[in-house]
Amino acid sequence: MKLPSRVKLVDVGPRDGLQNEKGEVPAAVKIGLVHRLQDAGLKEIEVTSFVSPKWVPQMADNTQVMAGIQRKPGVRYSVLTPNMKGFEASVASKPDEIVVFGAASEAFSQRNINCSIAESIERFAPVVEAARAKGIYVRGAISTAVGCPYEGDVAPERVELVAKLMKQIGVQHVGVADTIGVGTPRKVQAAMEAALKHYELDDVSGHFHDTYGQALPNTLATLEMGVWQYDSSVAGLGGCPYAKGATGNVATEDVVYMLHGMGIETGIDLDKLIDAGKYISDFLGRKPNSRAATALLNKRAG
Amino acid sequence: MKLPSRVKLVDVGPRDGLQNEKGEVPAAVKIGLVHRLQDAGLKEIEVTSFVSPKWVPQMADNTQVMAGIQRKPGVRYSVLTPNMKGFEASVASKPDEIVVFGAASEAFSQRNINCSIAESIERFAPVVEAARAKGIYVRGAISTAVGCPYEGDVAPERVELVAKLMKQIGVQHVGVADTIGVGTPRKVQAAMEAALKHYELDDVSGHFHDTYGQALPNTLATLEMGVWQYDSSVAGLGGCPYAKGATGNVATEDVVYMLHGMGIETGIDLDKLIDAGKYISDFLGRKPNSRAATALLNKRAG
Repeated sequence: MKLPSRVKLVDVGPRDGLQNEKGEVPAAVKIGLVHRLQDAGLKEIEVTSFVSPKWVPQMADNTQVMAGIQRKPGVRYSVLTPNMKGFEASVASKPDEIVVFGAASEAFSQRNINCSIAESIERFAPVVEAARAKGIYVRGAISTAVGCPYEGDVAPERVELVAKLMKQIGVQHVGVADTIGVGTPRKVQAAMEAALKHYELDDVSGHFHDTYGQALPNTLATLEMGVWQYDSSVAGLGGCPYAKGATGNVATEDVVYMLHGMGIETGIDLDKLIDAGKYISDFLGRKPNSRAATALLNKRAG
Repeated sequence: MKLPSRVKLVDVGPRDGLQNEKGEVPAAVKIGLVHRLQDAGLKEIEVTSFVSPKWVPQMADNTQVMAGIQRKPGVRYSVLTPNMKGFEASVASKPDEIVVFGAASEAFSQRNINCSIAESIERFAPVVEAARAKGIYVRGAISTAVGCPYEGDVAPERVELVAKLMKQIGVQHVGVADTIGVGTPRKVQAAMEAALKHYELDDVSGHFHDTYGQALPNTLATLEMGVWQYDSSVAGLGGCPYAKGATGNVATEDVVYMLHGMGIETGIDLDKLIDAGKYISDFLGRKPNSRAATALLNKRAG
């Protein structure tokens, strides 16, 4: 195994997670969550999105949330900006990074953002250009990189194509996202290899969902390729919009438990991370959707 | 990766699983579960134990269950026999295999079976001899092979010692069991390597608990060593006696989902396996504790 000695986790719970949770979460609670995550040692947090509140009312408080965060030196705060209007609205909030995303599945692109993959890249091009002109780092997410709810299996060649198009328009980093969690180790390795045809190892990340319980073996399989950046969601916030009641984003706690057990540094304090997950789970009136958090909270309770 | 092309799973749900579930399960339901597992393609099932009903009342119907199974050619039926009395009681039921177990942690051995590791091996020796004299295959389980609820981390040297002692008394196969689920990939590899100092690759298996969400990465890590036999429990039956409310045995459905996704054959029909898990979960009045089963049952429901 040629494993990295250190891994960087991006907690996407406040954005990707809370966007898919039922119930309204006030800005103060979102800010409280971001503060607890940075106190736990997270070095990057996906905070919110700048999308029309008509489509994503959960993130309508984006400016308020960004303004309310007491930023910690060394931590990066990213936001999702799917188009020029969103990007322009985000600038005053001074994000360190913006996220754009394209699907590897044509059917998913059409149904999710009402345009073809090629059209979505065209739409992102001016956003990327404007962000880079302002010195804002641009991360691209390649969704449905392994499987699609409409098309089924997605070939690695599709991932390679999106990675190539993203590279062409100046996207600096790509995340290989198994949006519906159907990936298994060999398949995610193939998708990651496809992205690595156009990006360096230091410029790719894995974004795995635990819908079928596969997120940690997929993480291990890509760690073995040297990948050292991953997205995860505290308390498994988010769920899966394509399989009601099922798990979505892998819980940050489970990833940290595995990495620390393997002697891989993350800079994260697992106890504080569990507190952060309990804070938001208590607010939502449910248990953290993390096996490690469940076991460790039970242990605390004695 | 030098992965095996085929994996054999032993479903321990009827014994290890149901022994740790609340509520009485009638013999007819246990038999129904075994029938569904063998119909789903399981080639080995741990059916029951022959232990004093004073200690394990859940398995007092052992003889009745073994007699009620319509055996399927090519399927092996194993039973747990911790001592000579249990072994003698099991013989009339014609098990294909008996299971004995010893702990790698001295504290666990003392608290769990009231004797030292050395004493437990002495106690098993005549059982192993008697079983082999009758042509019954003997499997040994090395419990707490990675961590112990009383001692914490368990050194691989402890696993090696138990493997050596088991080899000396004629145990034909050893399972490396992460009884409390605290193992992570490198640690389980080290424990497995220790067992492999005394057993061939064809004579070892992994028994991983999902308490901290680590069972599948641990399975992947040992698959990469060439290990091709694993225990698992349909619907994640069993829970964890050391962390109430937490997950115990890894769900067979999650393991099968991963293996099939990797192109590794198991001979198991995942849909029928999910039916088997739903059958027993419905009886217990709960949902299957398997992420793959949850996602696939949601998909079926549309």
